[in-house]
Amino acid sequence: MKRFVVVGHLGSTDPDFSLNNLPGAGRMDELCRCVAASLCLSHGIRRDAECLLVLLGGPKAPKTIRFSGESVRSLGPDERNVAGLIKKALALPCGTVFRESSPGVSVRKGGLAEVLAECGCAVLDEGGEDIRGVETVPETFVLSDHQNFSEEERGLMQDLPACSLGPCILHADMAIVVLHNELDRRESGWI
Amino acid sequence: MKRFVVVGHLGSTDPDFSLNNLPGAGRMDELCRCVAASLCLSHGIRRDAECLLVLLGGPKAPKTIRFSGESVRSLGPDERNVAGLIKKALALPCGTVFRESSPGVSVRKGGLAEVLAECGCAVLDEGGEDIRGVETVPETFVLSDHQNFSEEERGLMQDLPACSLGPCILHADMAIVVLHNELDRRESGWI
Repeated sequence: MKRFVVVGHLGSTDPDFSLNNLPGAGRMDELCRCVAASLCLSHGIRRDAECLLVLLGGPKAPKTIRFSGESVRSLGPDERNVAGLIKKALALPCGTVFRESSPGVSVRKGGLAEVLAECGCAVLDEGGEDIRGVETVPETFVLSDHQNFSEEERGLMQDLPACSLGPCILHADMAIVVLHNELDRRESGWI
Repeated sequence: MKRFVVVGHLGSTDPDFSLNNLPGAGRMDELCRCVAASLCLSHGIRRDAECLLVLLGGPKAPKTIRFSGESVRSLGPDERNVAGLIKKALALPCGTVFRESSPGVSVRKGGLAEVLAECGCAVLDEGGEDIRGVETVPETFVLSDHQNFSEEERGLMQDLPACSLGPCILHADMAIVVLHNELDRRESGWI
């Protein structure tokens, strides 16, 4: 399993955000691209991958939406398609246990701390070890959206291994693409 | 200069496509993501990069839209933002010489043959040489959208060097992200 956890610091937890203004919904456009980068191939779905969006925007925050490649259906890579699934998830009443809103899409109350307690994570950080030199690539990566991690978040993750991808600071969705490429190569003996 | 040429086999040349249905405009969503992947960093624009969209859909095809990182302004990475700039370009009457429709965005009549005549290109192809082993990475890459290159296109490019990125077939925008990462690393001595 490959898992990408994206912290959307302003990401809307209100299902009534407009599909015509995804950037205005706490940069929902970027979060949608992260889902597509995590799960979509040119002609197929990565069945061994998951994307968790940790949404911290609005009075109902924190909420976490999980997209599972194993069981998701009708997932197009365009932002609007993914955003429709997010709206549906946010409209579903939920507790602290994941509840399915669409095939392969689930939602729960809770944020980064809950995810960290469940998964052996690494954090993506420009000061981390070059991913190409890492002996064993971790199963789960935590990434931030357009904002830096907060002090509190850094505190939660201070003991986690940190990896970096290159000299340029990329959007989170781009970072996921690069991570997948490194993992694909290792799995297939391309390296 | 890094240049990414994306052939949109069904990409609309009609400016009246709907911003609410980018996939229906000949997979304009994917072409928009290619522009963002070519030019956008987390907090900035890649000033040394260009993206050329070769649009082959509709009666006005072929048309080519060029996005220049050097001079583009107001470029957000979300699909809808880029699509707005494409609509504006397609609405501008043009001949066979690039004409600017917005800062850093230009349009002309003509397709892949014209681009190939102007640039020293390589083609991205799953059977090509692994990019990590290529001694000198070419300046310009030609990529296809969700469709394979046509026989005619393959004929035009049969003598070009071919590179591949890994064992999985990616969307064109994802391929651009991986290419940039390789180029970034080489330029900065990360490899």
